[in-house]
Amino acid sequence: MTINVSDARPVVVQKYGGSSLADAEHIHNVAARIQLRRDDGVDVIVVVSAMGDSTDELISLSEAVAGGTQPDAREMDTLLSTGELVSSTLMAMALKARGCDSISLSGIQAGIKTDAVHGSARIADINTDRIRTELDKGRIVIVAGFQGLAESGDITTLGRGGSDTTAVALAVAVDAERCEIYTDVDGIYTTDPRLTDKARKLSEIGFDEMLEMAVLGAKMNPRSIELGAVYDMPVYVASSFSSEPGTLIHGGEQTMEVRKAVTGIAVDSNVAKITVRGVVDRPGVAAGLLKPLADEGVSVDVIVQNTSSDGTTDFTFTVGQASVVKAAQLIEDQSVIEYAEVITGSNLAKVSIVGTGMENAPGYAARMFSTLSEAKVNIDMITTSEIRITTIIDREQVQKAVQSLHDAFELEKSQ
Amino acid sequence: MTINVSDARPVVVQKYGGSSLADAEHIHNVAARIQLRRDDGVDVIVVVSAMGDSTDELISLSEAVAGGTQPDAREMDTLLSTGELVSSTLMAMALKARGCDSISLSGIQAGIKTDAVHGSARIADINTDRIRTELDKGRIVIVAGFQGLAESGDITTLGRGGSDTTAVALAVAVDAERCEIYTDVDGIYTTDPRLTDKARKLSEIGFDEMLEMAVLGAKMNPRSIELGAVYDMPVYVASSFSSEPGTLIHGGEQTMEVRKAVTGIAVDSNVAKITVRGVVDRPGVAAGLLKPLADEGVSVDVIVQNTSSDGTTDFTFTVGQASVVKAAQLIEDQSVIEYAEVITGSNLAKVSIVGTGMENAPGYAARMFSTLSEAKVNIDMITTSEIRITTIIDREQVQKAVQSLHDAFELEKSQ
Repeated sequence: MTINVSDARPVVVQKYGGSSLADAEHIHNVAARIQLRRDDGVDVIVVVSAMGDSTDELISLSEAVAGGTQPDAREMDTLLSTGELVSSTLMAMALKARGCDSISLSGIQAGIKTDAVHGSARIADINTDRIRTELDKGRIVIVAGFQGLAESGDITTLGRGGSDTTAVALAVAVDAERCEIYTDVDGIYTTDPRLTDKARKLSEIGFDEMLEMAVLGAKMNPRSIELGAVYDMPVYVASSFSSEPGTLIHGGEQTMEVRKAVTGIAVDSNVAKITVRGVVDRPGVAAGLLKPLADEGVSVDVIVQNTSSDGTTDFTFTVGQASVVKAAQLIEDQSVIEYAEVITGSNLAKVSIVGTGMENAPGYAARMFSTLSEAKVNIDMITTSEIRITTIIDREQVQKAVQSLHDAFELEKSQ
Repeated sequence: MTINVSDARPVVVQKYGGSSLADAEHIHNVAARIQLRRDDGVDVIVVVSAMGDSTDELISLSEAVAGGTQPDAREMDTLLSTGELVSSTLMAMALKARGCDSISLSGIQAGIKTDAVHGSARIADINTDRIRTELDKGRIVIVAGFQGLAESGDITTLGRGGSDTTAVALAVAVDAERCEIYTDVDGIYTTDPRLTDKARKLSEIGFDEMLEMAVLGAKMNPRSIELGAVYDMPVYVASSFSSEPGTLIHGGEQTMEVRKAVTGIAVDSNVAKITVRGVVDRPGVAAGLLKPLADEGVSVDVIVQNTSSDGTTDFTFTVGQASVVKAAQLIEDQSVIEYAEVITGSNLAKVSIVGTGMENAPGYAARMFSTLSEAKVNIDMITTSEIRITTIIDREQVQKAVQSLHDAFELEKSQ
């Protein structure tokens, strides 16, 4: 990534999602916000997603045309890239109508170069010359998100949530002060507000914690958070519909020490498990069992294998609810790994406490488990990372679990 | 324009308009036609317009966003170019779904370079390398019509009907056998079939005649016909909804001699006239009267000025019905040319007989005027070109005029 340190005015990159750009009136409202931000005395680059449901409409059209076949990935990328071209040009027009000089740039024109993996391309490099030229003319630069150019001259897209990635990558490339993601949620919460009315919006969160929390609240693409973390580019998440303060995701050195150990509770209610019992315990078991699933595109989440006792072990993993029947069948169809039986369990949920503070402080796991025990929540499986403790429980007990944990770790209080 | 004469298979360029691509089913039907054409043993390049009304929908969106201001022409071009990107990628998908290898190319990818006049750019050059490469892979190449790339890296569009221009220019650049324009009319007729049921579809017509007839039948862009004429690229116009033979527009040397002198009758029923009486006859009168109209974007069609008698003359010109009040006002407001009075006349029509054969054969004007006289059609004004005789008459008399002329010149009979 080319970093241009310039002695120009400070630059801010803003990104607006599709629900913020649903129609001409929404576009006008966002244009007014962009103008206000520019009046702060900063240069503004705006990354836009496609308007409202337009991407889904293009996907439906492609399915109708492909008539049951898989639409070609290269054609799909060019097709979908048009959604952001439409919203970026309209936004430039709306700003001009407000008397703000502005120009739209496609991914190509913005110098965004990617690899050639259609549908989930990765940004390889950004040539910011054109963006710099336009900023130097005093213009607000509107960049079509989600898209780039492969070396072949073909248009690529970055996958769902790709406009977030475009925004953070551009912020890094132009050495912006920060990247602001405006969306239809107003920040990152300690847990899903639908589960407890004590859920509190965080004013800040570390990148590592945010990655663990990513299934929560803000529909943020984990890739954009990783990119922010790697290049230490602060990412601010807030609502595009209000002026309420949002959440700053950042490297976190300044305030980390005085913060609580547990930052939030992440919840995923779409979990099923498959237990393979009586597996002969030898090297290659996990790989042998999971390869058929990978080949068929079944995503595996939590994986637990206990120490073996009698030379055999039980191997358990979780998948999305919709994949459990297919996954069990694939295990039964494979003939590489011997086992006694396959047992499936559905209607489960994953509840995790997340916080960088846990890394160096003991007792959080114990407190989590005793809290759940007192709430009579049965724990089915446990896994941990350095800054996260995850339990798999019955889906019916999610609300009880979240409320008791939110209370136990006093997440309603800011610190 | 780069002409690549290759020893590859013969190439045909086809163009399909928006009404032929209105939805997924239409796209499938067109894909089947393209596949059939390819099965003839030719390489096929297909130029597509935007689907159905999608261009008009984008224009409406831009007007809503621009809120009364004029949408920026550069932004407008990028916005409108998305319509053809959508239809071209969908067409490539539909062909693949039929087992036909195919690839879509944007104007940029197809190597179409234009000048920088947004909204009505002219093609400067076409680099056909990518198209050749894809054809050599056995692919059907689908090119997004109507668009190109300016040297600045900005996307341009060629104006209304620009996809026809793209198709003919590509046919010239790849040295195609011919360019086939498929549309919602099935060819070029001797006159508007709504005016006489004797109107006959022409199997062929010369470029010059077609230019004079351009207001008729096929909604063809005169620029594409001019381009075909300059490079002697035969253009075949036919329906995309049937397999009826259409009309071949060509240089015409092969069959011209045995053809009738009069090929067709062109009609324009949207005519008003303005007569400026008592103009002092001196150099600069026409320019002085018409400059204010040009400055205000009022298009003037027929212009007639008779030899002066007493040092003053009458100057008459026609405009579209909608412009007549404005045009008269502009004449009255100007102070450069002195005149006696301005008289306007509305509800007129222009009826012309067209044919290259008239050029070297006398008597056609006389026969036209006597035919109209016998039909009791009063002629208000007359102008002629080498291959056309035009009369301005009352709009109410158009049908009578066309029917009597169609009979008099025996246009119902093919020759």
